[in-house]
Amino acid sequence: MDMKAYLEERRGLVNRTLEGIIPQGRGPAFRVVEAMHYSLFAGGKRLRPILCLAGAEAVGGDLSEALPVACALEMIHTYSLIHDDLPAMDDDDLRRGHPTCHNQFDEATAILAGDGLLTEAFRVIADAAIHFIGKEAVLLETLQLIAAAAGYQGMVGGQMLDLLAEGRQVDRKELETIHRLKTGALLTASVRSGALMGGGTRQEITLLTGYGEKFGLAFQITDDILDVEGDSTEMGKAAGADAKRQKATYPGLLGTNQAKAWARQLVESALADLKPLGERAAPLEELARYLLVRRH
Amino acid sequence: MDMKAYLEERRGLVNRTLEGIIPQGRGPAFRVVEAMHYSLFAGGKRLRPILCLAGAEAVGGDLSEALPVACALEMIHTYSLIHDDLPAMDDDDLRRGHPTCHNQFDEATAILAGDGLLTEAFRVIADAAIHFIGKEAVLLETLQLIAAAAGYQGMVGGQMLDLLAEGRQVDRKELETIHRLKTGALLTASVRSGALMGGGTRQEITLLTGYGEKFGLAFQITDDILDVEGDSTEMGKAAGADAKRQKATYPGLLGTNQAKAWARQLVESALADLKPLGERAAPLEELARYLLVRRH
Repeated sequence: MDMKAYLEERRGLVNRTLEGIIPQGRGPAFRVVEAMHYSLFAGGKRLRPILCLAGAEAVGGDLSEALPVACALEMIHTYSLIHDDLPAMDDDDLRRGHPTCHNQFDEATAILAGDGLLTEAFRVIADAAIHFIGKEAVLLETLQLIAAAAGYQGMVGGQMLDLLAEGRQVDRKELETIHRLKTGALLTASVRSGALMGGGTRQEITLLTGYGEKFGLAFQITDDILDVEGDSTEMGKAAGADAKRQKATYPGLLGTNQAKAWARQLVESALADLKPLGERAAPLEELARYLLVRRH
Repeated sequence: MDMKAYLEERRGLVNRTLEGIIPQGRGPAFRVVEAMHYSLFAGGKRLRPILCLAGAEAVGGDLSEALPVACALEMIHTYSLIHDDLPAMDDDDLRRGHPTCHNQFDEATAILAGDGLLTEAFRVIADAAIHFIGKEAVLLETLQLIAAAAGYQGMVGGQMLDLLAEGRQVDRKELETIHRLKTGALLTASVRSGALMGGGTRQEITLLTGYGEKFGLAFQITDDILDVEGDSTEMGKAAGADAKRQKATYPGLLGTNQAKAWARQLVESALADLKPLGERAAPLEELARYLLVRRH
């Protein structure tokens, strides 16, 4: 399959739907809507919605059934980036080459834009009910699982642990916990929620949850490797951001070669989870393989 | 009816349920849970959950049907207070006589505690599905209406407008818009969601929504009046916080007497909305009357 074309098509579908959800800011009073829009369209890969849509496909579901949930996942991801970038948190000035939300607007607006995106994400899922008569229980189960993955038992808890770990020795077990919560939980929830909305059986959902967990961890390991290897490219990039912040990373703890081997192993295991699903899981297969060759 | 005993009993019910939702913080890793718990139990009046439960009662519903939603409303209210108090927003050190969340913990933890409470609120509503088999559509409608009231079209938008209005002349129409969004929307959603969960008819829900809108506005007017009159009491209180911040208020715009007259008028009109609901709406009636005599 042509992965580049596939990703582009899916990104387009997600972006068009998101445009319909968050209108362009209207005047100074709607500064917060402008800020929500700004960050949502600052050039994300749309990985979480793409995983969600591919999860629905993998169980023979229709894309349109998962689309509102896919968009909500991207809104939750964007809110988390806005808040993580704040001065009181990671204090980042740039995100994907653009000024971060609090730099482009101001701190108060950025906090509110994050709050607005998080709230709107749940509204969008609940609002999908009008298109899913008879599937309300599935919608509520999906919303519940996404909220659990995003909240203090997931992403919020992971960010807390990450902040508490800064400048301190962290072992492999602790690092895995941080990443499982901070990024793994929402990535897993993305695949799983797509499978749920697509009408997957309990067995299919279990398989795809396993895939999602391994994908999430492999994603973080390859992210850390990219941060290190960016150092030695011909692009003349500055030293890795993680090293500067003294953040624990997998290459730092295990060495780059062992970290790469582990990522490969996780991807292999994720692919094995997909086997029983056959051809329909081809996009998820490609997405997992892609982790091992991605450049950003 | 004995209003004091009624409010105390309801507050107890809400508090016990909230205690079961947010566990006590466990160790340093769960700092964010501690912070969520700290702010949630820092002495709130529980007005929104009490309105929600009374809304369910007013349509002949069972309290237990509205209880998860009532708790979610208090969690959303608490998140909004934590974020509003942040240095980048209203920069408050004290809230109800206790250090604000970012003072007791730190700014990053306070941002995350707010995020955690907001996310958990929606999880709690969705999670209630297991107790409401066959009522999933109502649960989704309730969640949607609460998210709309809390997001950029409601509370978040109102806070944005409020920040943008600081230090600037604001007329009565603009002040009403700010308050309708910032506090009115969630108060109205509280009564309305209770009526929905309690199984109210469309006509009953319309009546109670009217009540909620007037209650919300009267609440804000009496809040502003309290801020002014605290000045002249024998308690030797410092000048009103609103005046210090040059915030527009109803007594400031209309004069205290006219503001009081308007609050009375709104309460009368809210009571008229309740008439067709009969005896079951007695608690809502008392709550509205209470606005005119409240001291805090």
